[in-house]
Amino acid sequence: MKHRKRAFTLKPGLASLCLLASVVHAQDVADIPEAVRENVELLIQNGLDDNVGYEFVRDLTTEVGQRLAGSEAEERARIWSTQKLAELGFANIRTEPFKIPYWSRRVDKASIVSPAPQDMVISALGGSTSTPPGGVEAEVIRFESMGELRAASTDVVSDKIVFIDEKMTRTQDGSGYGMAVRKRRNCATTTSQKGGLACLIRSVGTQSRRFAHTGMMFRSAAVGDGPAAALSPPDAEQLTRLLENGPVKVRLEIEVETQPEAPSGNVIAEVVGRERPEEIVLIGCHLDSWDLGTGAVDDGAGCGIVVGAAHLIMSLDEAPRRTIRVVLYGAEEVGLLGGFAYAKRHADEMDQHILAAESDFGADKIWRFETRFGDRALPYARAIQRVLEPLGISPGHNLASGGPDISMLPRLGVPVVTPRQNGWDYFDLHHTPDDTFDKIDQGNLNQNIAAYAAFAYLAAEMDWDFRE
Amino acid sequence: MKHRKRAFTLKPGLASLCLLASVVHAQDVADIPEAVRENVELLIQNGLDDNVGYEFVRDLTTEVGQRLAGSEAEERARIWSTQKLAELGFANIRTEPFKIPYWSRRVDKASIVSPAPQDMVISALGGSTSTPPGGVEAEVIRFESMGELRAASTDVVSDKIVFIDEKMTRTQDGSGYGMAVRKRRNCATTTSQKGGLACLIRSVGTQSRRFAHTGMMFRSAAVGDGPAAALSPPDAEQLTRLLENGPVKVRLEIEVETQPEAPSGNVIAEVVGRERPEEIVLIGCHLDSWDLGTGAVDDGAGCGIVVGAAHLIMSLDEAPRRTIRVVLYGAEEVGLLGGFAYAKRHADEMDQHILAAESDFGADKIWRFETRFGDRALPYARAIQRVLEPLGISPGHNLASGGPDISMLPRLGVPVVTPRQNGWDYFDLHHTPDDTFDKIDQGNLNQNIAAYAAFAYLAAEMDWDFRE
Repeated sequence: MKHRKRAFTLKPGLASLCLLASVVHAQDVADIPEAVRENVELLIQNGLDDNVGYEFVRDLTTEVGQRLAGSEAEERARIWSTQKLAELGFANIRTEPFKIPYWSRRVDKASIVSPAPQDMVISALGGSTSTPPGGVEAEVIRFESMGELRAASTDVVSDKIVFIDEKMTRTQDGSGYGMAVRKRRNCATTTSQKGGLACLIRSVGTQSRRFAHTGMMFRSAAVGDGPAAALSPPDAEQLTRLLENGPVKVRLEIEVETQPEAPSGNVIAEVVGRERPEEIVLIGCHLDSWDLGTGAVDDGAGCGIVVGAAHLIMSLDEAPRRTIRVVLYGAEEVGLLGGFAYAKRHADEMDQHILAAESDFGADKIWRFETRFGDRALPYARAIQRVLEPLGISPGHNLASGGPDISMLPRLGVPVVTPRQNGWDYFDLHHTPDDTFDKIDQGNLNQNIAAYAAFAYLAAEMDWDFRE
Repeated sequence: MKHRKRAFTLKPGLASLCLLASVVHAQDVADIPEAVRENVELLIQNGLDDNVGYEFVRDLTTEVGQRLAGSEAEERARIWSTQKLAELGFANIRTEPFKIPYWSRRVDKASIVSPAPQDMVISALGGSTSTPPGGVEAEVIRFESMGELRAASTDVVSDKIVFIDEKMTRTQDGSGYGMAVRKRRNCATTTSQKGGLACLIRSVGTQSRRFAHTGMMFRSAAVGDGPAAALSPPDAEQLTRLLENGPVKVRLEIEVETQPEAPSGNVIAEVVGRERPEEIVLIGCHLDSWDLGTGAVDDGAGCGIVVGAAHLIMSLDEAPRRTIRVVLYGAEEVGLLGGFAYAKRHADEMDQHILAAESDFGADKIWRFETRFGDRALPYARAIQRVLEPLGISPGHNLASGGPDISMLPRLGVPVVTPRQNGWDYFDLHHTPDDTFDKIDQGNLNQNIAAYAAFAYLAAEMDWDFRE
C-alpha cells in the first residue's frame, strides 16, 4: 500500500470534478494511517456490540418519559442527562439555558355530531389556539390538498371547519415529509384568513392506525392563528366517507396552555481533544420530544446514538486530536430553538467547528453518507464512506443539511454530514403516542453508533479540513 | 358419476368410524345433485365478486360507528340494519328486544406518579367500578400471571394496585385467547378479595402498539368487584422496567356509568324456505361492539359476511327448501346476552334449527371447516368441506363451538359449524380503538361470504340431518 503516506497532493481543480459515487482516487489525499484505521475498526466492532447508547435511550424514555419543550419534564431530562453523562465519564458537561414560548395541550377532542354521532381520534397541533369555551361546532368542508384550500374562496370556507385530507408519500429518505408538512404548518393561518373556524388535517404520517400525529404549526410561534388538529388516518377516511353522503357537522374542543417564557436548554458534554481541544467535531440530537409518546425514535434514539458513539471514542487509548462535542439540543420540536440558541451563543467559534452532524431520523440503519463539504474536501467524504462501507452505507450527495438543529450551520461556514437513516417506517411513529422504546431495534441502533463513532473519530483525529 | 343418485345408504356404525380428514366415501351418503352443485358453484363465484357484504360493514361502521351494548348507538345500529336488510329484500325482518345491565366508561386515565411522572395509555375493562372520586393512588405490585396473583398472600396485595403482566400467545386458531382472557375476567375479583385497590392488566392482545384492549371482566355481570383496566403493551413494558428500579406509585381514575336495565335486541331477517320454511339454517354475527373502535373486525365483518352470504342465496332462481335465518345478535360483548336471549325465546323451536354458525373472528380468510355433528352426519361435513376446498379450506375436527352467541345451542341439540378464520392478526385489533373499517380486505371478506353462502345453501337445500 505505497500510497498510504501521501496526503493532500491532489490539486483543487481536480477534486471538484470528482463525483462522490464514482471511483475517485481519494486515497491519494485522504489516506488514513494504519494506527487510525485500527482504531476505526475497533470503534466499529465495539459499536456493533455497544450497550451504552441503547441503555441511554431506554433509560431516558423510561425514567423521564415524554419531554415536551419548556416543560418540567424537559427540565428533568436535562438533569437526568447531565448526571448520566457524568457517570459515563464525559468532560465539560454543562447546560446552556435559553427561554422559549411554551405551548401545551390540556384538552383536545373531536366528534362527529351529525349525521352519525361518534368520537374521532385527534391531536391538537403545536401552536393551536384554544377553541372558545365549550368548543366549536360547524359543518366540515373538505379539501384534497393545502393548495386546494389556498385556492378556495372565502365564501365557501367562512364559518366552516376546514378538513385537509392530503396524504403523505412513504419514502426511504424522508422526502415525503417536506410536502406533507406544509398543510400542518399553514392550515390554521389560511383557514383563519378565509374566515374558517378551525382546521383539521389528515395526520402527517404514513401509518394507517388510529393514531393522530401532532407537530408544530409554525417554526417559531408559540400560538398560531386558530384551533388546529390532526386526525388519525382511519378517522380521516371515516370523515371522507361520511362527506360523500352529505353534510357533516363536527364538534371540536381544544384547550391549550401557553406561557410567553419557559425554560429550555442545550446539554453539552465533551471528549476533549488531545492536541487541538478548541477544534470541535459536533455530534448532536435533540432532547425534547412531543408529549404523546415517550420520544423514543424522535429523538431519544438520536441521543443514544451520539452519546454511545462519543463514549466509544472516549474509551480509546488516547483521545483524538480535536474535541468531540455532544450536544443534546432543547426545544427542537417547537422551531429548532435549541439549534438557534446554540448558533447564536457560539457565533464567534463557528470557524472552530470542523464538522457537525445531528441524528434525528429514528433508529433504523444508515444507508447513505451525505455531506456538505467544500469541493476540494470531497475526497474526505469518499474516504469516510469507504470506512463505513462494511456497515452497508453507500456514498451520498454533497447537499446535506446535517439535521434540524445544525441546519443553520452551513450558512455560517460549518461543514456538515447527514448519515442518512432508513426512514421508511419513521413516519409511522413520528409524533404519535406510539413513539415508544419498544420500537427500537438494538442491532439497527448499534449500526448507527458504529458509524457515528467511526466518522466522528476520523474527523477529530485526521488533519482534514472539510471547508477546503 | 353413477353414485350421484344414491343417498343415506351408509350404515350408522360405519360412518361413526370415519375421520374427517381421511378419505371417506362420503359421496355415497352425501351426494349432491348436479343442479345443487351448479348453484353452489354460482354462489362461490358470485361470493368472490360480492359487494353487498363489504358495503354492509363499511356503511354500518361509518354511518353508525361504535355500537356499545345497551347504548343509544346500538339502538341506531338496529334501526340501520333493519332498514338495510329491507332494502336488500330480506323477509320477516324484526327485532327481538331484551334488557341488559348497562356499563359505559366516562373517564379512564392513569399515570405514573413516582419515580418518573408520566401518563399511561389504558382502557377501563367492561364491568369495572369507578374509583373513589379523585382516583386511587398507590404502589404497584406486579405479577407474571393470574396464577401468581391467586397464589399471593393478602399481605402483599393489600392496599396495592395489582399489575398482571401476563403475555398472550399469537395463534392462528385463536387458542391463545382462552388462556390470556382469564386475567381480564378474574383480576378485579381476586384483587378485591386480597384487599388490593385496583387491578391493571397487560392488554389481552398480540400487538405491540400503544393501544389498550378493553373487554368484559365477567360473563354476565354489569359491574364487578373493583376498578380494573388494561394497559397498552408499551405501557406494560414501561411499568415493568420502572419496577425493576424500585417502587412505583400509580394513579388511576375510572368513572363509569351503569344502569340496571337498558335496551338491546337481536335483529333477524330471513330467506324463507320454499318447502319447509319452519326448518332453519341460522347464520349469525353480533351487531354490538366495544366503544373504542368502530367494531369493524369485531364484528361488523361477521355481519357483512352473513348478510352478504344470505343475500347471495336470495338471488338464486329459487329459495332453498329450508329457511336461511340471519341473526344479528345484540349485547354479545357483555356476556353473550343476545345469544342467551335468542336461545330462551326460541327454546321450543330448537329441533327446527337444522344448523347454526356465527361469524365472529374478524375478516381474514377461512382456512378450516369445523363441525359439531352427530357421528353419522360426518359424511355431510366432509361433503361440505370438499365443496369449500377450492376456497383453500381444509377439513377440521368435530368439536366446534359454532361461535359465542350460538355456543349454548349444541347443548340444546343444535348442530353447529365453525368456518375457522385465520386469527393470526385478529388480536392486534380486537377491542382496541384501531378496530376500524380500513383494516378489512375485501378479497378476504369475500372468501368468507362465498364459503358461508355455499355451506348455508347446501344445509338448507339438501335433506341432510346433521344430528344423525
